[in-house]
Amino acid sequence: MNIESMLANKIQKVDKLLKNYLTPNSEYEEKIYEAMKYSIFAGGKRIRPILMIEAYNVLNNYEKAVEPFAVAIEMIHTYSLIHDDLPAMDDDDYRRGKLTNHKVYGDGIAILAGDALLNLAFEIMIEGSLQNDMKLGLQAMKILGERSGVHGMIGGQVIDLLSENREISIETVTYIHEHKTAALIHAAVEVGVLLAGGTKEQLEKMKKFGYYLGMAFQIQDDILDKIGKQEILGKSIDSDEKNKKATYVSFYGLEKSKEQVILLSKKAFECLNYFGESADFLKQLTKYLMDRNY
Amino acid sequence: MNIESMLANKIQKVDKLLKNYLTPNSEYEEKIYEAMKYSIFAGGKRIRPILMIEAYNVLNNYEKAVEPFAVAIEMIHTYSLIHDDLPAMDDDDYRRGKLTNHKVYGDGIAILAGDALLNLAFEIMIEGSLQNDMKLGLQAMKILGERSGVHGMIGGQVIDLLSENREISIETVTYIHEHKTAALIHAAVEVGVLLAGGTKEQLEKMKKFGYYLGMAFQIQDDILDKIGKQEILGKSIDSDEKNKKATYVSFYGLEKSKEQVILLSKKAFECLNYFGESADFLKQLTKYLMDRNY
Repeated sequence: MNIESMLANKIQKVDKLLKNYLTPNSEYEEKIYEAMKYSIFAGGKRIRPILMIEAYNVLNNYEKAVEPFAVAIEMIHTYSLIHDDLPAMDDDDYRRGKLTNHKVYGDGIAILAGDALLNLAFEIMIEGSLQNDMKLGLQAMKILGERSGVHGMIGGQVIDLLSENREISIETVTYIHEHKTAALIHAAVEVGVLLAGGTKEQLEKMKKFGYYLGMAFQIQDDILDKIGKQEILGKSIDSDEKNKKATYVSFYGLEKSKEQVILLSKKAFECLNYFGESADFLKQLTKYLMDRNY
Repeated sequence: MNIESMLANKIQKVDKLLKNYLTPNSEYEEKIYEAMKYSIFAGGKRIRPILMIEAYNVLNNYEKAVEPFAVAIEMIHTYSLIHDDLPAMDDDDYRRGKLTNHKVYGDGIAILAGDALLNLAFEIMIEGSLQNDMKLGLQAMKILGERSGVHGMIGGQVIDLLSENREISIETVTYIHEHKTAALIHAAVEVGVLLAGGTKEQLEKMKKFGYYLGMAFQIQDDILDKIGKQEILGKSIDSDEKNKKATYVSFYGLEKSKEQVILLSKKAFECLNYFGESADFLKQLTKYLMDRNY
Protein backbone atom coordinates (compact mmCIF):
# COMPACT_ATOMS: atom_id res chain seq x y z
CA MET A 1 0.00 0.00 0.00
CA ASN A 2 1.36 3.42 -0.86
CA ILE A 3 1.49 6.29 1.60
CA GLU A 4 -1.57 7.97 0.14
CA SER A 5 -3.81 4.92 0.62
CA MET A 6 -2.39 4.35 4.08
CA LEU A 7 -3.09 7.96 4.99
CA ALA A 8 -6.61 7.82 3.58
CA ASN A 9 -7.26 4.84 5.86
CA LYS A 10 -5.87 6.60 8.88
CA ILE A 11 -7.80 9.79 8.14
CA GLN A 12 -10.99 7.75 7.97
CA LYS A 13 -10.26 6.23 11.38
CA VAL A 14 -9.65 9.64 12.95
CA ASP A 15 -12.84 10.97 11.36
CA LYS A 16 -14.80 8.13 12.91
CA LEU A 17 -13.32 8.88 16.35
CA LEU A 18 -14.14 12.56 16.02
CA LYS A 19 -17.71 11.76 15.07
CA ASN A 20 -18.17 9.75 18.29
CA TYR A 21 -17.42 12.84 20.34
CA LEU A 22 -19.68 15.25 18.49
CA THR A 23 -23.27 14.40 19.34
CA PRO A 24 -25.57 17.06 20.83
CA ASN A 25 -27.32 16.21 24.11
CA SER A 26 -30.49 18.17 23.36
CA GLU A 27 -32.28 20.24 20.75
CA TYR A 28 -30.75 23.37 22.24
CA GLU A 29 -27.28 22.12 21.31
CA GLU A 30 -28.02 21.29 17.68
CA LYS A 31 -26.94 24.56 16.11
CA ILE A 32 -23.61 24.83 17.90
CA TYR A 33 -22.76 21.19 17.19
CA GLU A 34 -23.62 21.80 13.55
CA ALA A 35 -21.14 24.70 13.49
CA MET A 36 -18.48 22.68 15.34
CA LYS A 37 -18.90 19.72 12.98
CA TYR A 38 -18.88 21.95 9.93
CA SER A 39 -15.28 22.94 10.61
CA ILE A 40 -14.17 19.60 12.05
CA PHE A 41 -15.32 17.85 8.89
CA ALA A 42 -14.17 20.48 6.41
CA GLY A 43 -11.49 18.30 4.86
CA GLY A 44 -8.74 18.43 7.48
CA LYS A 45 -5.74 16.21 6.78
CA ARG A 46 -5.67 15.03 10.45
CA ILE A 47 -1.90 15.45 10.55
CA ARG A 48 -1.71 16.05 14.30
CA PRO A 49 -3.84 13.10 15.49
CA ILE A 50 -2.14 10.80 12.97
CA LEU A 51 1.28 11.95 14.15
CA MET A 52 0.24 11.31 17.75
CA ILE A 53 -1.11 7.85 17.06
CA GLU A 54 1.89 6.92 14.90
CA ALA A 55 4.35 8.17 17.51
CA TYR A 56 2.50 5.97 19.99
CA ASN A 57 2.77 3.04 17.58
CA VAL A 58 6.53 3.46 17.32
CA LEU A 59 6.86 2.22 20.90
CA ASN A 60 3.73 0.28 21.56
CA ASN A 61 0.82 -1.49 19.96
CA TYR A 62 -2.20 0.67 19.43
CA GLU A 63 -4.38 1.13 22.48
CA LYS A 64 -7.53 3.09 23.03
CA ALA A 65 -5.85 5.26 25.67
CA VAL A 66 -4.42 7.51 22.96
CA GLU A 67 -7.77 8.17 21.26
CA PRO A 68 -9.15 10.94 23.50
CA PHE A 69 -5.90 12.87 23.07
CA ALA A 70 -5.86 12.39 19.30
CA VAL A 71 -9.41 13.73 19.14
CA ALA A 72 -8.54 16.60 21.47
CA ILE A 73 -5.56 17.83 19.45
CA GLU A 74 -7.61 17.95 16.26
CA MET A 75 -10.32 19.92 18.09
CA ILE A 76 -7.73 22.37 19.37
CA HIS A 77 -6.26 22.76 15.90
CA THR A 78 -9.73 23.29 14.39
CA TYR A 79 -10.81 25.87 16.97
CA SER A 80 -7.64 27.83 16.24
CA LEU A 81 -8.46 27.86 12.52
CA ILE A 82 -12.02 29.05 13.15
CA HIS A 83 -10.80 31.94 15.30
CA ASP A 84 -7.89 32.74 12.92
CA ASP A 85 -10.26 33.09 9.98
CA LEU A 86 -12.49 35.65 11.72
CA PRO A 87 -12.68 39.19 10.29
CA ALA A 88 -10.96 40.46 13.45
CA MET A 89 -7.97 38.21 12.65
CA ASP A 90 -6.96 36.99 9.15
CA ASP A 91 -10.39 37.70 7.66
CA ASP A 92 -10.48 34.68 5.36
CA ASP A 93 -13.66 33.71 3.51
CA TYR A 94 -12.42 30.32 2.35
CA ARG A 95 -10.37 27.48 3.77
CA ARG A 96 -9.65 24.25 1.91
CA GLY A 97 -12.07 25.47 -0.75
CA LYS A 98 -15.00 25.78 1.64
CA LEU A 99 -16.57 28.85 3.22
CA THR A 100 -15.06 29.56 6.62
CA ASN A 101 -17.15 29.00 9.74
CA HIS A 102 -18.14 32.63 10.30
CA LYS A 103 -19.18 33.01 6.65
CA VAL A 104 -21.72 30.24 7.19
CA TYR A 105 -22.79 30.74 10.83
CA GLY A 106 -21.91 34.35 11.58
CA ASP A 107 -19.07 35.71 13.71
CA GLY A 108 -20.83 35.17 17.06
CA ILE A 109 -21.50 31.47 16.55
CA ALA A 110 -18.03 31.00 15.04
CA ILE A 111 -16.42 32.45 18.16
CA LEU A 112 -18.56 30.20 20.36
CA ALA A 113 -17.94 27.12 18.19
CA GLY A 114 -14.21 27.73 18.65
CA ASP A 115 -14.60 28.20 22.40
CA ALA A 116 -16.71 25.06 22.57
CA LEU A 117 -14.13 22.97 20.70
CA LEU A 118 -11.29 24.13 22.93
CA ASN A 119 -13.34 23.42 26.05
CA LEU A 120 -14.51 20.07 24.70
CA ALA A 121 -10.93 19.05 23.92
CA PHE A 122 -10.09 19.36 27.60
CA GLU A 123 -13.33 17.64 28.67
CA ILE A 124 -12.43 14.67 26.49
CA MET A 125 -8.86 14.49 27.80
CA ILE A 126 -10.09 14.72 31.40
CA GLU A 127 -12.50 11.82 30.87
CA GLY A 128 -9.78 9.85 29.09
CA SER A 129 -7.41 10.43 32.00
CA LEU A 130 -10.00 9.30 34.54
CA GLN A 131 -10.58 6.08 32.55
CA ASN A 132 -6.90 5.22 32.08
CA ASP A 133 -3.59 6.06 33.75
CA MET A 134 -4.34 9.31 35.58
CA LYS A 135 -0.76 10.47 35.91
CA LEU A 136 0.11 9.86 32.26
CA GLY A 137 -3.15 11.52 31.27
CA LEU A 138 -2.42 14.62 33.32
CA GLN A 139 1.14 14.79 31.97
CA ALA A 140 -0.18 14.52 28.41
CA MET A 141 -2.75 17.24 29.10
CA LYS A 142 -0.01 19.41 30.54
CA ILE A 143 1.99 19.14 27.31
CA LEU A 144 -1.02 19.86 25.12
CA GLY A 145 -2.22 22.68 27.38
CA GLU A 146 1.16 24.41 27.33
CA ARG A 147 1.66 24.05 23.59
CA SER A 148 -1.81 25.31 22.73
CA GLY A 149 -1.92 28.22 25.16
CA VAL A 150 -0.31 31.59 25.61
CA HIS A 151 3.18 30.01 25.78
CA GLY A 152 2.47 28.11 22.57
CA MET A 153 -0.01 28.39 19.74
CA ILE A 154 -2.03 31.34 21.05
CA GLY A 155 1.20 33.20 21.79
CA GLY A 156 2.28 32.68 18.18
CA GLN A 157 -1.05 33.87 16.87
CA VAL A 158 -0.84 37.01 19.02
CA ILE A 159 2.53 37.99 17.54
CA ASP A 160 1.30 37.11 14.05
CA LEU A 161 -1.65 39.46 14.55
CA LEU A 162 0.44 42.25 16.07
CA SER A 163 2.95 41.96 13.20
CA GLU A 164 0.52 42.67 10.38
CA ASN A 165 1.55 45.67 8.31
CA ARG A 166 4.73 46.07 10.33
CA GLU A 167 8.39 45.46 9.63
CA ILE A 168 9.46 42.50 11.73
CA SER A 169 12.71 40.64 12.18
CA ILE A 170 13.47 37.07 11.12
CA GLU A 171 13.61 36.23 14.85
CA THR A 172 9.98 37.28 15.14
CA VAL A 173 8.99 35.23 12.08
CA THR A 174 10.73 32.26 13.68
CA TYR A 175 8.91 32.89 16.98
CA ILE A 176 5.60 32.89 15.15
CA HIS A 177 6.40 29.66 13.28
CA GLU A 178 7.67 27.91 16.39
CA HIS A 179 4.65 28.84 18.45
CA LYS A 180 1.77 29.04 16.01
CA THR A 181 2.59 25.86 14.08
CA ALA A 182 5.47 23.79 15.41
CA ALA A 183 4.29 23.82 19.05
CA LEU A 184 1.19 21.72 18.42
CA ILE A 185 3.02 19.40 16.00
CA HIS A 186 5.72 18.48 18.49
CA ALA A 187 3.07 18.24 21.20
CA ALA A 188 1.36 15.60 19.06
CA VAL A 189 4.37 13.27 18.88
CA GLU A 190 5.46 13.97 22.46
CA VAL A 191 2.04 12.99 23.77
CA GLY A 192 2.12 9.85 21.63
CA VAL A 193 5.46 8.76 23.09
CA LEU A 194 4.48 9.74 26.61
CA LEU A 195 1.23 7.76 26.58
CA ALA A 196 3.06 4.77 25.12
CA GLY A 197 5.31 4.81 28.19
CA GLY A 198 8.38 6.23 26.44
CA THR A 199 11.61 7.05 28.27
CA LYS A 200 12.85 10.59 28.77
CA GLU A 201 15.35 10.12 25.96
CA GLN A 202 12.72 8.79 23.57
CA LEU A 203 10.50 11.70 24.48
CA GLU A 204 13.31 14.17 23.81
CA LYS A 205 14.14 12.62 20.43
CA MET A 206 10.54 12.61 19.35
CA LYS A 207 10.04 16.18 20.51
CA LYS A 208 12.99 17.28 18.37
CA PHE A 209 11.59 15.37 15.42
CA GLY A 210 8.28 17.17 15.91
CA TYR A 211 10.00 20.52 16.14
CA TYR A 212 11.93 20.07 12.87
CA LEU A 213 8.89 18.65 11.14
CA GLY A 214 6.70 21.51 12.39
CA MET A 215 9.14 24.18 11.24
CA ALA A 216 9.63 22.52 7.84
CA PHE A 217 5.87 22.19 7.52
CA GLN A 218 5.31 25.90 8.15
CA ILE A 219 8.04 27.05 5.77
CA GLN A 220 6.57 24.71 3.16
CA ASP A 221 3.23 26.43 3.84
CA ASP A 222 4.83 29.83 3.25
CA ILE A 223 6.32 28.54 -0.03
CA LEU A 224 2.98 27.14 -1.15
CA ASP A 225 1.25 30.34 -0.17
CA LYS A 226 3.62 32.15 -2.50
CA ILE A 227 3.47 29.78 -5.45
CA GLY A 228 0.43 27.59 -4.81
CA LYS A 229 -2.69 27.70 -6.89
CA GLN A 230 -5.96 28.63 -5.26
CA GLU A 231 -7.75 25.52 -6.49
CA ILE A 232 -5.07 23.34 -4.91
CA LEU A 233 -4.59 25.13 -1.61
CA GLY A 234 -8.25 26.02 -1.19
CA LYS A 235 -7.48 29.43 0.21
CA SER A 236 -6.82 32.72 -1.50
CA ILE A 237 -3.31 32.68 -2.99
CA ASP A 238 -0.83 34.88 -1.36
CA SER A 239 -3.11 35.66 1.54
CA ASP A 240 0.04 36.41 3.52
CA GLU A 241 0.82 39.21 1.11
CA LYS A 242 -2.76 40.47 1.33
CA ASN A 243 -2.38 40.82 5.11
CA LYS A 244 1.17 42.09 4.67
CA LYS A 245 2.59 39.29 6.73
CA ALA A 246 6.29 38.70 6.87
CA THR A 247 7.07 35.04 6.14
CA TYR A 248 10.20 32.96 5.84
CA VAL A 249 9.90 33.33 2.07
CA SER A 250 9.67 37.11 2.15
CA PHE A 251 12.95 37.17 4.10
CA TYR A 252 14.98 34.54 2.30
CA GLY A 253 13.26 34.08 -1.06
CA LEU A 254 11.89 30.88 -2.53
CA GLU A 255 15.14 29.04 -3.26
CA LYS A 256 16.67 29.46 0.16
CA SER A 257 13.37 28.58 1.79
CA LYS A 258 13.17 25.35 -0.20
CA GLU A 259 16.73 24.52 0.91
CA GLN A 260 15.68 25.15 4.49
CA VAL A 261 12.77 22.74 4.18
CA ILE A 262 15.19 20.07 2.90
CA LEU A 263 17.63 20.77 5.74
CA LEU A 264 14.93 20.61 8.42
CA SER A 265 13.46 17.43 6.93
CA LYS A 266 16.90 15.86 7.05
CA LYS A 267 17.21 16.72 10.73
CA ALA A 268 13.74 15.33 11.34
CA PHE A 269 14.79 12.07 9.64
CA GLU A 270 17.91 11.85 11.78
CA CYS A 271 15.80 12.01 14.93
CA LEU A 272 13.65 9.18 13.63
CA ASN A 273 16.69 7.00 12.92
CA TYR A 274 17.01 6.67 16.68
CA PHE A 275 13.83 4.58 16.69
CA GLY A 276 14.92 2.17 13.94
CA GLU A 277 12.44 0.46 11.66
CA SER A 278 9.49 1.06 13.92
CA ALA A 279 9.56 4.69 12.78
CA ASP A 280 9.23 3.80 9.10
CA PHE A 281 5.73 5.12 8.73
CA LEU A 282 6.65 8.44 10.36
CA LYS A 283 9.52 8.71 7.86
CA GLN A 284 7.23 8.13 4.93
CA LEU A 285 4.79 10.65 6.34
CA THR A 286 7.53 13.25 6.78
CA LYS A 287 8.66 12.77 3.18
CA TYR A 288 5.09 12.98 1.98
CA LEU A 289 4.41 16.21 3.88
CA MET A 290 7.58 17.84 2.56
CA ASP A 291 6.83 16.87 -1.04
CA ARG A 292 3.23 18.05 -0.93
CA ASN A 293 2.04 20.76 -3.24
CA TYR A 294 -1.07 21.64 -1.24
CA MET B 1 -16.61 42.30 61.02
CA ASN B 2 -19.54 42.90 58.68
CA ILE B 3 -20.03 41.02 55.44
CA GLU B 4 -18.70 43.86 53.31
CA SER B 5 -15.36 44.01 55.11
CA MET B 6 -15.09 40.24 55.12
CA LEU B 7 -15.77 40.16 51.40
CA ALA B 8 -13.26 42.92 50.72
CA ASN B 9 -10.64 40.80 52.48
CA LYS B 10 -11.53 37.72 50.54
CA ILE B 11 -11.54 39.60 47.24
CA GLN B 12 -8.07 40.88 48.03
CA LYS B 13 -6.84 37.34 48.66
CA VAL B 14 -8.28 36.08 45.37
CA ASP B 15 -6.74 39.04 43.54
CA LYS B 16 -3.36 38.15 44.96
CA LEU B 17 -3.70 34.54 43.82
CA LEU B 18 -4.72 35.62 40.33
CA LYS B 19 -1.74 37.92 40.10
CA ASN B 20 0.63 35.01 40.81
CA TYR B 21 -0.62 33.20 37.73
CA LEU B 22 -0.43 36.12 35.31
CA THR B 23 3.23 36.81 34.59
CA PRO B 24 4.51 36.79 31.00
CA ASN B 25 7.47 34.52 30.22
CA SER B 26 8.99 36.78 27.60
CA GLU B 27 8.70 40.14 25.89
CA TYR B 28 6.58 38.51 23.19
CA GLU B 29 3.94 37.69 25.78
CA GLU B 30 3.64 41.16 27.30
CA LYS B 31 0.79 42.50 25.19
CA ILE B 32 -1.47 39.47 25.57
CA TYR B 33 -0.86 39.32 29.33
CA GLU B 34 -1.68 43.01 29.53
CA ALA B 35 -5.01 42.33 27.80
CA MET B 36 -5.71 39.30 30.00
CA LYS B 37 -4.90 41.24 33.17
CA TYR B 38 -6.94 44.22 32.05
CA SER B 39 -10.13 42.18 32.22
CA ILE B 40 -9.11 40.01 35.16
CA PHE B 41 -8.49 43.13 37.25
CA ALA B 42 -11.44 45.17 35.99
CA GLY B 43 -13.26 45.13 39.31
CA GLY B 44 -14.72 41.63 39.38
CA LYS B 45 -16.48 40.69 42.60
CA ARG B 46 -14.77 37.25 42.63
CA ILE B 47 -18.06 35.58 43.53
CA ARG B 48 -17.19 32.22 41.96
CA PRO B 49 -13.74 31.71 43.55
CA ILE B 50 -15.03 32.96 46.90
CA LEU B 51 -17.97 30.57 46.72
CA MET B 52 -15.59 27.73 45.91
CA ILE B 53 -13.21 28.50 48.75
CA GLU B 54 -16.05 29.04 51.22
CA ALA B 55 -17.75 25.79 50.19
CA TYR B 56 -14.41 24.10 50.83
CA ASN B 57 -14.20 25.79 54.22
CA VAL B 58 -17.61 24.47 55.22
CA LEU B 59 -16.12 20.97 55.42
CA ASN B 60 -12.43 21.50 55.89
CA ASN B 61 -9.79 23.96 56.95
CA TYR B 62 -8.40 26.01 54.11
CA GLU B 63 -5.73 24.28 52.07
CA LYS B 64 -3.75 25.38 49.06
CA ALA B 65 -5.17 22.54 46.98
CA VAL B 66 -8.26 24.61 46.23
CA GLU B 67 -6.34 27.66 44.97
CA PRO B 68 -5.62 26.58 41.37
CA PHE B 69 -9.30 25.79 40.89
CA ALA B 70 -10.43 29.10 42.40
CA VAL B 71 -8.09 30.93 40.03
CA ALA B 72 -9.26 28.82 37.08
CA ILE B 73 -12.97 29.47 37.61
CA GLU B 74 -12.39 33.23 37.69
CA MET B 75 -10.37 32.99 34.47
CA ILE B 76 -13.16 31.02 32.81
CA HIS B 77 -15.74 33.55 33.96
CA THR B 78 -13.60 36.44 32.72
CA TYR B 79 -12.92 34.92 29.30
CA SER B 80 -16.66 34.44 28.86
CA LEU B 81 -17.27 38.12 29.61
CA ILE B 82 -14.59 39.24 27.13
CA HIS B 83 -16.13 37.14 24.36
CA ASP B 84 -19.71 38.09 25.32
CA ASP B 85 -18.91 41.77 25.05
CA LEU B 86 -17.56 41.50 21.48
CA PRO B 87 -19.41 43.29 18.67
CA ALA B 88 -20.31 39.86 17.23
CA MET B 89 -22.09 39.03 20.50
CA ASP B 90 -23.62 41.57 22.93
CA ASP B 91 -21.58 44.47 21.54
CA ASP B 92 -21.02 46.22 24.87
CA ASP B 93 -18.58 49.13 25.17
CA TYR B 94 -18.55 49.21 28.96
CA ARG B 95 -18.54 46.71 31.78
CA ARG B 96 -18.41 47.68 35.46
CA GLY B 97 -17.84 51.26 34.30
CA LYS B 98 -14.69 50.43 32.33
CA LEU B 99 -14.17 50.06 28.61
CA THR B 100 -14.54 46.45 27.51
CA ASN B 101 -11.48 44.49 26.40
CA HIS B 102 -12.02 44.86 22.65
CA LYS B 103 -12.59 48.62 22.99
CA VAL B 104 -9.08 48.89 24.44
CA TYR B 105 -7.15 46.15 22.59
CA GLY B 106 -9.21 45.54 19.45
CA ASP B 107 -11.41 42.58 18.59
CA GLY B 108 -8.56 40.27 17.53
CA ILE B 109 -6.58 40.56 20.75
CA ALA B 110 -9.79 40.37 22.79
CA ILE B 111 -10.68 37.05 21.14
CA LEU B 112 -7.17 35.73 21.81
CA ALA B 113 -7.10 37.05 25.40
CA GLY B 114 -10.32 35.11 25.99
CA ASP B 115 -8.91 31.97 24.37
CA ALA B 116 -5.72 32.35 26.41
CA LEU B 117 -7.62 32.67 29.71
CA LEU B 118 -9.72 29.58 29.00
CA ASN B 119 -6.63 27.59 28.04
CA LEU B 120 -4.66 28.91 31.03
CA ALA B 121 -7.49 27.94 33.39
CA PHE B 122 -7.04 24.33 32.34
CA GLU B 123 -3.24 24.55 32.47
CA ILE B 124 -3.46 25.77 36.06
CA MET B 125 -5.90 23.05 37.08
CA ILE B 126 -3.74 20.37 35.42
CA GLU B 127 -0.66 21.54 37.33
CA GLY B 128 -2.70 21.73 40.54
CA SER B 129 -3.92 18.18 40.00
CA LEU B 130 -0.39 16.88 39.40
CA GLN B 131 0.77 18.52 42.64
CA ASN B 132 -2.08 17.26 44.81
CA ASP B 133 -4.62 14.44 44.73
CA MET B 134 -4.77 13.51 41.04
CA LYS B 135 -8.14 11.81 41.13
CA LEU B 136 -9.86 14.62 43.03
CA GLY B 137 -8.20 17.11 40.70
CA LEU B 138 -9.44 15.33 37.59
CA GLN B 139 -12.94 15.03 39.05
CA ALA B 140 -12.95 18.76 39.86
CA MET B 141 -11.74 19.56 36.34
CA LYS B 142 -14.47 17.36 34.94
CA ILE B 143 -17.13 19.34 36.78
CA LEU B 144 -15.70 22.69 35.73
CA GLY B 145 -15.12 21.52 32.17
CA GLU B 146 -18.70 20.33 31.79
CA ARG B 147 -20.25 23.41 33.34
CA SER B 148 -18.20 25.83 31.28
CA GLY B 149 -18.53 24.04 27.94
CA VAL B 150 -21.19 23.36 25.36
CA HIS B 151 -23.35 21.51 27.92
CA GLY B 152 -23.04 24.46 30.30
CA MET B 153 -22.06 28.10 30.00
CA ILE B 154 -21.20 28.14 26.29
CA GLY B 155 -24.43 26.30 25.52
CA GLY B 156 -26.36 29.01 27.39
CA GLN B 157 -24.55 31.76 25.55
CA VAL B 158 -25.34 30.11 22.20
CA ILE B 159 -29.09 30.10 22.92
CA ASP B 160 -28.87 33.65 24.28
CA LEU B 161 -27.27 34.77 21.00
CA LEU B 162 -29.69 32.83 18.81
CA SER B 163 -32.64 34.28 20.75
CA GLU B 164 -31.89 37.93 20.06
CA ASN B 165 -34.76 39.67 18.33
CA ARG B 166 -36.89 36.54 18.52
CA GLU B 167 -39.91 35.52 20.51
CA ILE B 168 -38.81 32.84 22.94
CA SER B 169 -40.58 30.81 25.60
CA ILE B 170 -40.04 31.01 29.35
CA GLU B 171 -38.51 27.52 29.08
CA THR B 172 -35.83 28.94 26.81
CA VAL B 173 -35.18 31.85 29.17
CA THR B 174 -34.80 29.34 31.98
CA TYR B 175 -32.41 27.25 29.86
CA ILE B 176 -30.27 30.31 29.21
CA HIS B 177 -30.19 31.26 32.91
CA GLU B 178 -29.43 27.72 34.03
CA HIS B 179 -26.60 27.28 31.58
CA LYS B 180 -25.12 30.73 31.08
CA THR B 181 -25.10 31.73 34.75
CA ALA B 182 -26.14 29.05 37.23
CA ALA B 183 -23.92 26.30 35.76
CA LEU B 184 -20.64 27.96 36.74
CA ILE B 185 -22.00 29.05 40.13
CA HIS B 186 -23.00 25.57 41.19
CA ALA B 187 -19.76 24.24 39.71
CA ALA B 188 -17.93 26.58 42.10
CA VAL B 189 -19.50 25.17 45.26
CA GLU B 190 -19.48 21.59 44.00
CA VAL B 191 -15.76 21.76 43.32
CA GLY B 192 -15.19 23.27 46.77
CA VAL B 193 -17.01 20.41 48.48
CA LEU B 194 -15.40 17.78 46.24
CA LEU B 195 -11.86 18.98 46.92
CA ALA B 196 -12.60 19.14 50.64
CA GLY B 197 -13.45 15.42 50.52
CA GLY B 198 -17.22 15.83 50.83
CA THR B 199 -19.63 12.90 50.66
CA LYS B 200 -22.04 12.34 47.79
CA GLU B 201 -24.88 13.73 49.87
CA GLN B 202 -22.92 16.84 50.85
CA LEU B 203 -22.03 17.33 47.18
CA GLU B 204 -25.67 17.02 46.16
CA LYS B 205 -26.85 19.51 48.79
CA MET B 206 -24.20 22.02 47.84
CA LYS B 207 -24.94 21.62 44.15
CA LYS B 208 -28.60 22.39 44.80
CA PHE B 209 -27.61 25.41 46.86
CA GLY B 210 -25.46 26.60 43.96
CA TYR B 211 -28.26 26.07 41.50
CA TYR B 212 -30.80 28.10 43.50
CA LEU B 213 -28.26 30.79 44.21
CA GLY B 214 -27.22 30.96 40.54
CA MET B 215 -30.81 31.25 39.33
CA ALA B 216 -31.66 33.88 41.95
CA PHE B 217 -28.50 35.76 41.03
CA GLN B 218 -29.42 35.86 37.35
CA ILE B 219 -33.01 36.96 37.94
CA GLN B 220 -31.66 39.64 40.28
CA ASP B 221 -29.40 40.69 37.38
CA ASP B 222 -32.40 40.94 35.07
CA ILE B 223 -34.19 43.06 37.67
CA LEU B 224 -31.21 45.36 38.08
CA ASP B 225 -30.81 45.59 34.34
CA LYS B 226 -34.39 46.87 34.23
CA ILE B 227 -34.26 49.30 37.12
CA GLY B 228 -30.55 49.81 37.80
CA LYS B 229 -28.73 53.01 37.16
CA GLN B 230 -25.81 53.03 34.77
CA GLU B 231 -23.45 54.53 37.33
CA ILE B 232 -24.21 51.74 39.77
CA LEU B 233 -24.22 48.77 37.41
CA GLY B 234 -21.40 50.07 35.23
CA LYS B 235 -23.00 48.88 32.04
CA SER B 236 -25.57 50.52 29.81
CA ILE B 237 -28.98 50.36 31.45
CA ASP B 238 -31.46 48.07 29.91
CA SER B 239 -28.90 46.56 27.58
CA ASP B 240 -31.19 43.53 27.45
CA GLU B 241 -33.87 45.69 25.90
CA LYS B 242 -31.35 47.17 23.47
CA ASN B 243 -30.51 43.69 22.22
CA LYS B 244 -34.17 42.69 22.44
CA LYS B 245 -33.45 39.91 24.84
CA ALA B 246 -36.22 38.11 26.62
CA THR B 247 -35.53 37.99 30.35
CA TYR B 248 -37.33 36.66 33.38
CA VAL B 249 -38.53 40.20 34.03
CA SER B 250 -39.95 40.68 30.54
CA PHE B 251 -42.04 37.53 31.08
CA TYR B 252 -43.22 37.97 34.64
CA GLY B 253 -42.76 41.64 35.41
CA LEU B 254 -40.74 43.18 38.24
CA GLU B 255 -42.92 42.20 41.18
CA LYS B 256 -43.20 38.53 40.36
CA SER B 257 -39.48 38.41 39.55
CA LYS B 258 -38.63 39.87 42.94
CA GLU B 259 -40.85 37.27 44.59
CA GLN B 260 -39.02 34.58 42.65
CA VAL B 261 -35.64 35.84 43.90
CA ILE B 262 -36.94 35.62 47.47
CA LEU B 263 -38.31 32.12 46.88
CA LEU B 264 -35.07 30.86 45.35
CA SER B 265 -32.98 32.44 48.10
CA LYS B 266 -35.14 30.67 50.65
CA LYS B 267 -34.50 27.36 48.93
CA ALA B 268 -30.79 28.12 48.80
CA PHE B 269 -30.85 28.82 52.56
CA GLU B 270 -32.63 25.54 53.24
CA CYS B 271 -29.85 23.64 51.46
CA LEU B 272 -27.28 25.38 53.63
CA ASN B 273 -29.14 24.46 56.83
CA TYR B 274 -27.96 20.91 56.19
CA PHE B 275 -24.39 22.01 56.94
CA GLY B 276 -25.22 23.71 60.24
CA GLU B 277 -23.20 26.63 61.58
CA SER B 278 -20.21 25.97 59.36
CA ALA B 279 -22.22 27.38 56.47
CA ASP B 280 -22.86 30.72 58.20
CA PHE B 281 -20.61 32.69 55.92
CA LEU B 282 -22.26 31.24 52.79
CA LYS B 283 -25.62 32.26 54.26
CA GLN B 284 -24.47 35.80 54.83
CA LEU B 285 -23.03 35.90 51.33
CA THR B 286 -26.28 34.64 49.83
CA LYS B 287 -28.26 37.29 51.68
CA TYR B 288 -25.78 39.96 50.61
CA LEU B 289 -25.95 38.92 46.93
CA MET B 290 -29.74 38.93 46.94
CA ASP B 291 -29.96 42.35 48.58
CA ARG B 292 -27.40 43.93 46.23
CA ASN B 293 -28.38 46.86 44.07
CA TYR B 294 -25.46 46.53 41.66
